[in-house]
Amino acid sequence: MRGFFISFEGPDGAGKSTVLAEVLKQIGPKLKAQYLVTREPGGSKIAEKIRKIILDPENVKMSDRTEALLYAAARSQHVEEIIKPALNEGKIVISDRFVDSSLAYQGAGRNLGIKEVKEINDFATGGLEPDLTLFFDLDPKIGLARIEKLRPGHEDRLEQEKLAFHEKVYEGYQEVNKLYSDRIAIIDASKPFEEVVETTISTIQKRLPELF
Amino acid sequence: MRGFFISFEGPDGAGKSTVLAEVLKQIGPKLKAQYLVTREPGGSKIAEKIRKIILDPENVKMSDRTEALLYAAARSQHVEEIIKPALNEGKIVISDRFVDSSLAYQGAGRNLGIKEVKEINDFATGGLEPDLTLFFDLDPKIGLARIEKLRPGHEDRLEQEKLAFHEKVYEGYQEVNKLYSDRIAIIDASKPFEEVVETTISTIQKRLPELF
Repeated sequence: MRGFFISFEGPDGAGKSTVLAEVLKQIGPKLKAQYLVTREPGGSKIAEKIRKIILDPENVKMSDRTEALLYAAARSQHVEEIIKPALNEGKIVISDRFVDSSLAYQGAGRNLGIKEVKEINDFATGGLEPDLTLFFDLDPKIGLARIEKLRPGHEDRLEQEKLAFHEKVYEGYQEVNKLYSDRIAIIDASKPFEEVVETTISTIQKRLPELF
Repeated sequence: MRGFFISFEGPDGAGKSTVLAEVLKQIGPKLKAQYLVTREPGGSKIAEKIRKIILDPENVKMSDRTEALLYAAARSQHVEEIIKPALNEGKIVISDRFVDSSLAYQGAGRNLGIKEVKEINDFATGGLEPDLTLFFDLDPKIGLARIEKLRPGHEDRLEQEKLAFHEKVYEGYQEVNKLYSDRIAIIDASKPFEEVVETTISTIQKRLPELF
């Protein structure tokens, strides 16, 4: 028996984490199997240590390739220690960000190439892919403005990047969404919160009816 | 103008670091260019933070792939921040361990495959290779016994591995030495210390006469 793996993706400030929490509040009790909510970078003790290095605003000198490799390292640990064992127990695993984030942020945003970063990540995950990915679609300008309002002066190293970077990330996501259109569903995150939550739930019900 | 890049390789306990110190004491003043001595994993502030996670004996749950990616991440930072700028200034850079260590320890020792680990590292280094690699050849049994004598109870996470692991690493080095025989010189590290130092110096003089 194998569980189900869902990832939440999108630009910073698209509201992924808040939507995820509300969605689970509403559908959690109706799910057939136990579910596990996790996040990247991080999700395990070692991966959280790596997360700290990645996001620390002090590490301004970090090279783009180092950043990509650290994300892959944290992901590898997350997969091996948390995601795979839970899927093997038949659980539903929901991760706030997964490989697509690296393709968009490091592959496109840092100009390392989506193909190149995908190869590093295939090594990291051993080829594991989500059964369903929900992409929260929002103009990066609006996303950034939301973050600045939410936690002014407390942005992490990547959130601190200028708009031009976040726009390249957004274009990267568009490319990723085309490449993996089979597993990715696009949710309009500019809509009012309740509507976004509703669309997310109905998308999960439609794409993975076996979860209920 | 581009400098020269030399790496020191070998199993744990082969005496690389001690030989390196003595060699530089003797030939340092005779070298034509400034030289920079560095080490892996580490060599820069960010890379040293990554080194801490890699070697901490507390991180027993680290997956093999995470380990390989963390070494590559630290190396990428080391190359970008330290090695490349020094080479561009015409310096001689001498590193205690480089890519070959990952090929032997993670590729062979952890069974991840020398080719697979080489690909990750090509991404990390952008293809940078040493002009000369000195491999300190020693039976891993003798190397491990030396380490246990030198720092009993203070071995790092990799040194703590059993003999079977270190024997696989040693076999990996043999394969790497064949693959890159052009740039790798083999030094018999079982000989008395003075003799090892002498052979190391004469090898550098023969292979890179332009340094003097």
